[in-house]
Amino acid sequence: MPSIAVLPGDGIGKEVINEGLKVLNFMGEKYSLNLKFEEFDIGAERFLKYGELIPDSILKRLETFDAIYLGAVGDPRVPAGILEHGILLKLRFHFDQYVNLRPIKLLNDRFSPLKKKGVNEINFTVIRENTEGLYAGIGGILKKDTQDEVAIQEMISTRKGVERIIRYAFEYAKNINGKLTLCDKSNVLTYSHGLWLRVFEELKKEYPEVQTDHYYVDAITMKMVRNPEIFDVIVTCNMFGDIITDLGAELQGGMGLAASGNINPNTVSMFEPVHGSAPDIAGKGIANPLAAILAAAMMLEYLGRKDLSDKIEGAIKISIDENLLSKDMGGNLSTGEVGDEIVKILKRG
Amino acid sequence: MPSIAVLPGDGIGKEVINEGLKVLNFMGEKYSLNLKFEEFDIGAERFLKYGELIPDSILKRLETFDAIYLGAVGDPRVPAGILEHGILLKLRFHFDQYVNLRPIKLLNDRFSPLKKKGVNEINFTVIRENTEGLYAGIGGILKKDTQDEVAIQEMISTRKGVERIIRYAFEYAKNINGKLTLCDKSNVLTYSHGLWLRVFEELKKEYPEVQTDHYYVDAITMKMVRNPEIFDVIVTCNMFGDIITDLGAELQGGMGLAASGNINPNTVSMFEPVHGSAPDIAGKGIANPLAAILAAAMMLEYLGRKDLSDKIEGAIKISIDENLLSKDMGGNLSTGEVGDEIVKILKRG
Ligand SMILES: CC(C)[C@H](C(=O)O)[C@@H](O)C(=O)O
Ligand SMILES: CC(C)[C@H](C(=O)O)[C@@H](O)C(=O)O
Repeated sequence: MPSIAVLPGDGIGKEVINEGLKVLNFMGEKYSLNLKFEEFDIGAERFLKYGELIPDSILKRLETFDAIYLGAVGDPRVPAGILEHGILLKLRFHFDQYVNLRPIKLLNDRFSPLKKKGVNEINFTVIRENTEGLYAGIGGILKKDTQDEVAIQEMISTRKGVERIIRYAFEYAKNINGKLTLCDKSNVLTYSHGLWLRVFEELKKEYPEVQTDHYYVDAITMKMVRNPEIFDVIVTCNMFGDIITDLGAELQGGMGLAASGNINPNTVSMFEPVHGSAPDIAGKGIANPLAAILAAAMMLEYLGRKDLSDKIEGAIKISIDENLLSKDMGGNLSTGEVGDEIVKILKRG
Repeated sequence: MPSIAVLPGDGIGKEVINEGLKVLNFMGEKYSLNLKFEEFDIGAERFLKYGELIPDSILKRLETFDAIYLGAVGDPRVPAGILEHGILLKLRFHFDQYVNLRPIKLLNDRFSPLKKKGVNEINFTVIRENTEGLYAGIGGILKKDTQDEVAIQEMISTRKGVERIIRYAFEYAKNINGKLTLCDKSNVLTYSHGLWLRVFEELKKEYPEVQTDHYYVDAITMKMVRNPEIFDVIVTCNMFGDIITDLGAELQGGMGLAASGNINPNTVSMFEPVHGSAPDIAGKGIANPLAAILAAAMMLEYLGRKDLSDKIEGAIKISIDENLLSKDMGGNLSTGEVGDEIVKILKRG
């Protein structure tokens, strides 16, 4: 009986998670999954009321779940960075979710921003390191607010951290029979990305069956636009993964369709839409729940039911073909109606 | 009498710089510019023969010029990183060329990779910090090649360095009556980009006439694809500038059209095509010289002749309209023929 901790968070987080749960509940009943949900109230409200981000008691409770299903955090009343650090990054680091898995898959040609690239070309996965690099949060400021001020931010890479993510990526590429691309900037970041490149070269020998190549991060952004079809799996550091997956999200039709898994097979993994809390449209019932529903599908795959994940993705594809979509995607349905339609399609087939 | 040091470098560097010089020589005669050129032989050949990158004697001589015109460095016989560090980055750092100016300007709709965006939408300038950040080259490795290895790469930002580039960007935006966008990741890189954001906010007060906005680097890549028309001038750190200008180059039709200025008004500035030495096509006479010619135009603008720079850009536009182009751009001219055609057009008009 898989247990899922639900953290809707702020803004449209709540609205889109509702639709994800609608789909999960339906699938749970239909396929007797026996899913157990428990909701936790974290986000801006709690912070503004109690000055609390994730209390230790909740963190302890979360450790007992099979997965976490997260909406979005962020609120204009809270200074930038606080909720991201105190909740999103906190969870990634606390649970040592070292894999950030971000599929870039265009579901319908009409959503491609590119003249020459469609569903056959835009279909790859970015595997982003999720626990170190520039995200370590380590550094400092000397002589703050003087003319002599110096600020240092450390990009820290450990062999263990680099090796486990690159190994995960090789395994992933091997499983899908795909090519693995290393994205780094080892010609300039000779220390940190020198390590990445060395480990990549080492592991190549352990996976002779996996084809590989290597691009610097600047060139990757060009290639993603010019020849996205050359990619199957890209492995990269935390910071570059952040950047290229947003570009990737745009290639697959925008944030409305981008889902992400924060994975550590030995602790608790977390699934989330990549988009934020979108305070400007929160509460209006117009948010697009597809990314949250795709995140729910990724979670089912993680829990061992790739078959059901595929069904949900299939239903989303149909809803796109039939334009059963929210306004931002060119449809005219409300958030709730989009979820209802997905469930209807799943019922049909 | 402006004096220009010419560093053709490696591979197609030599071939494209030839064409840039063809155009400069023509303009020099026509407008009595009295340009003086001197060529310096740096690059892979010198390194392989003498183990030398830029000898101090050449560095000293370069200090006496008004500008440097650089082709490209890079050679498959030299390990990655050596020529980039020893020549390209060396010159940027030695001359403290703190501004890396990279216009992103689509010259013809047919080169846009985007369905919905053309010459009216893709036209902005990225101002990249060019002397610090992750490019400082500072860091180290502990316990190399053991399981406990830790690699650290320092992103170092100084107030002086951040302030001068942001000030340059405000002045630039003010001059073209445009909006200035800050691109950072201050929500995560709280030390280094915290400084960027603070300085940006401070300088805003000095430039109340300049409209501003602010995006995180991940969001910038999406916006560049979805709404490039919202940008006039983007200011950003060294690493992010490297990444987003390659994406930008792709939006303007690829590396074949991307030129870059490395500027410090108080020392010696350097102009270069953004592309590399392309060893695979070197020596075949098929390289596309347009980026090098655009770099030459930027150099003329820097030397006070924006009028002539505009004429060259105009001629390039015509050569594109008339498909007087190299193979990579869909034409069938050789490198030398492209340069000849540009000169012919300039003669005509
Ligand atoms: C909100 C932010 C801290 C986060 C990140 O930078 O990782 C987001 O951009 C993402 O990609 O999940
Ligand atoms: C060659 C490399 C060191 C250089 C950089 O990273 O700055 C290049 O990519 C550029 O953008 O000029």
